[in-house]
Amino acid sequence: MPLIQLVAEKIKEHAMVTAGETIVVGVSGGADSVSLLHILYMLKDELKIKLVVAHLNHRFRGAEADADAKFVSELAERWHLEAYVESRDVPAYKNTRGVSAQVAAREVRYNFLSEVATKTGAARVALGHHADDQTETILLHFIRGTGTRGLRGMLPVRDNFFIRPLLTIRRKEIESYCKQHGLAYRHDASNDKSKYLRNRLRLELVPLLESQYNPNLIQAINRLGEIIREEDEYLDQQAGKAYRQAKLASGGGTVRLDRDRLLAIPLALRNRVIRMAWFEICGDSDDLEYKHINKVLEIIKGGGGYRQIALPRGVTCVKNYNLVEFTINHAKEAIPFYQYLINIPGITPIPEVGMSVGAQLLAREDVPELSGAEPWEAFLDYDSLSMPLVVRRRLNGDRFMPLGLDGTIKLKKFFIDNKIPVNIRNYIPLVVSGADIVWVAGQRPGDKWKVTDETITVLRLYINDYGKNSCIS
Amino acid sequence: MPLIQLVAEKIKEHAMVTAGETIVVGVSGGADSVSLLHILYMLKDELKIKLVVAHLNHRFRGAEADADAKFVSELAERWHLEAYVESRDVPAYKNTRGVSAQVAAREVRYNFLSEVATKTGAARVALGHHADDQTETILLHFIRGTGTRGLRGMLPVRDNFFIRPLLTIRRKEIESYCKQHGLAYRHDASNDKSKYLRNRLRLELVPLLESQYNPNLIQAINRLGEIIREEDEYLDQQAGKAYRQAKLASGGGTVRLDRDRLLAIPLALRNRVIRMAWFEICGDSDDLEYKHINKVLEIIKGGGGYRQIALPRGVTCVKNYNLVEFTINHAKEAIPFYQYLINIPGITPIPEVGMSVGAQLLAREDVPELSGAEPWEAFLDYDSLSMPLVVRRRLNGDRFMPLGLDGTIKLKKFFIDNKIPVNIRNYIPLVVSGADIVWVAGQRPGDKWKVTDETITVLRLYINDYGKNSCIS
Repeated sequence: MPLIQLVAEKIKEHAMVTAGETIVVGVSGGADSVSLLHILYMLKDELKIKLVVAHLNHRFRGAEADADAKFVSELAERWHLEAYVESRDVPAYKNTRGVSAQVAAREVRYNFLSEVATKTGAARVALGHHADDQTETILLHFIRGTGTRGLRGMLPVRDNFFIRPLLTIRRKEIESYCKQHGLAYRHDASNDKSKYLRNRLRLELVPLLESQYNPNLIQAINRLGEIIREEDEYLDQQAGKAYRQAKLASGGGTVRLDRDRLLAIPLALRNRVIRMAWFEICGDSDDLEYKHINKVLEIIKGGGGYRQIALPRGVTCVKNYNLVEFTINHAKEAIPFYQYLINIPGITPIPEVGMSVGAQLLAREDVPELSGAEPWEAFLDYDSLSMPLVVRRRLNGDRFMPLGLDGTIKLKKFFIDNKIPVNIRNYIPLVVSGADIVWVAGQRPGDKWKVTDETITVLRLYINDYGKNSCIS
Repeated sequence: MPLIQLVAEKIKEHAMVTAGETIVVGVSGGADSVSLLHILYMLKDELKIKLVVAHLNHRFRGAEADADAKFVSELAERWHLEAYVESRDVPAYKNTRGVSAQVAAREVRYNFLSEVATKTGAARVALGHHADDQTETILLHFIRGTGTRGLRGMLPVRDNFFIRPLLTIRRKEIESYCKQHGLAYRHDASNDKSKYLRNRLRLELVPLLESQYNPNLIQAINRLGEIIREEDEYLDQQAGKAYRQAKLASGGGTVRLDRDRLLAIPLALRNRVIRMAWFEICGDSDDLEYKHINKVLEIIKGGGGYRQIALPRGVTCVKNYNLVEFTINHAKEAIPFYQYLINIPGITPIPEVGMSVGAQLLAREDVPELSGAEPWEAFLDYDSLSMPLVVRRRLNGDRFMPLGLDGTIKLKKFFIDNKIPVNIRNYIPLVVSGADIVWVAGQRPGDKWKVTDETITVLRLYINDYGKNSCIS
């Protein structure tokens, strides 16, 4: 089957795009992203999508990187595509945040792509990861130690926002596609240096395993990834049910669970349930390691009354007879001020608090029961909102009109009335339109935009939908 | 913690032995099996177990192997342990069966160990596999392509019969244990040759991964194995439930499933359910590959009326509207005559039909409801049976007195009356005591040994308990 058709089928299989949407394509200039752009270009009329090109210069490779940027700009111009080509100081970001070059590049790039999506009203961002990349990801997770989660590899669709149409295609197929269609592309020389672990894996380990142990390595590992992905999703669903059953209360940086119900959960799900509790108060799964989960499981299993353990990020877990309680102790000054435009529809990461805000547009009739809304989601009347929406940390003097109230009150008073501890208040993202607080995330939406019988389009906002998708990967 | 105590805890954790039991210890003469024997020797009074040494000369390594056998014999004599040291022609077995040297050695060795257990009335066989072996197993499965099952590695307890007390202990810990206790051991020089894939993995790949990618490789992979083991067990339980719900009928080499109920099963479990159907008619999971399962899933999902596909081993899968049917078409002459002593309690493999017979002794009050017996199990009055029991293929002239009947009938007539197709009759194992057929496996037990109110001890016989333990690994 020709590659274009194969990719078209994958796009259909995973419902990667919807007719009428704008798609941002991340183009580095390499063979994979150039052919991704070309394939989507060939399919754009059939899929009824509009393409926007996005390229980021990470400022790690000087003149060479400038030439890449020029190459992508010219490509977009030749194909008459709108393009956003920008340069950001990733080396500085790396130093400020104290992370590796790869992590810095990844964070800045994903933020950049989300921003381009916001500016252009795009619903998704397409990325050029292919089957060989996937093998490397899974292999690396396997060798470095991981639970099931790492073995599933990258997702074809992540957060309903990032899509990877080439994920099952081999690198050599992509290269011969470029050859066949006369597509020029840039070669990133830093990929040839075996200094980086990832490059060493690609240049040395994968070829060794292919020649000495299994010529079909890529196929075998990617198939495993697919199986694990399905199983992982199923296990998460089951764990999500168990978590909701074991939960007594949550909010204000605390989750309370029923110990007897925790103990009744099958062993295979119990560590996922602990992870979900962590996720609910921390907003991601970083820093929670296997050994921490084991410590928690130990005090849950152990007899006696009161036991307390300290976990990373100032989280404590207390067991007190039949109660198990996780609490996060955020220092007030730990969260710097931040402000981001919200992608609608889409996901907006807030690295400062390790959370993200998701936004979805729904027809009124697709929102069955508003009383069923959980604290981590809000349903609003889309047409009565003034755009753009922004998510930011609170500021002194913020005022708020909570759902059900007639006038505005100081946000501070709202926090006090709702018993939100001082030390977590800076941790709560506010969704804001102009000077109005639209949603105090995890707490209460504003009254002004409530869904009524007249509402036509509903905006669903949510903080990391952990019930369905327990970890952001 | 001293190694002995660590192993004692693992034995307790997995309930590897019961007081009063005899344990056969497989001793090759290497550091791992010698230290296993020593540790169990040191624990034998505390655990109230009796030890029997078993050593098999595989006849692959001439004089060196003879010296190994002598070494083990002398060791057992010095420690005053009963020992079975035998030599079998594995090279001939390898050639007859057309399998690799490793597979041949494995099959002959496991049969030998089961036989020693039968002769000595031992309840279990202890094997010396350690954490480094486990890593190699998991790594090999990962590289060669596997589902979740392969990643769980070897089980600490398999079939409630084979136990592996050293499975979490590192090779270097075992070697220093030998040094510390002045234990001599034999070195198998064939382990140093990188000719064999497994040796290459141990000698080249694992050290490379440890030095270049993760110094804690062994720990990381074994932890993954443990997580996967729990998840795999849970997924199997869920799939077992789904399988029983989807099953309309089975027997006579056929399984009938309800298509709508199959389609309602979560994707993550569906391939396991197909595997269970295969297992029920074939007795193991060999030869059923991912691509076959996919073909089955495809015709199940597809619309239309009649569809038929051929699977390995003469199995066909037919979809006919809402019916999905698996049938095995065994050629009459395909099964050679075989005869094995049955291990009670224990597992007796029947390689000729890819099944095994399990035997368990239960107190009368522990057998709740005999009407609940499935075709693949039989409950008999243990005290009225004459020992030993044997499992064998049918012979011309076999006669049988089925449960509920007053006199004997020809087995052939029984098959005809019960609509067992000619082509699968040789495939049905018969459990025999002297000239009496005690159980036509999968069909009917004999009347003479039925459980009554006078029964004190019940013998439970079963063919591969796939509900609980869907694949023999």
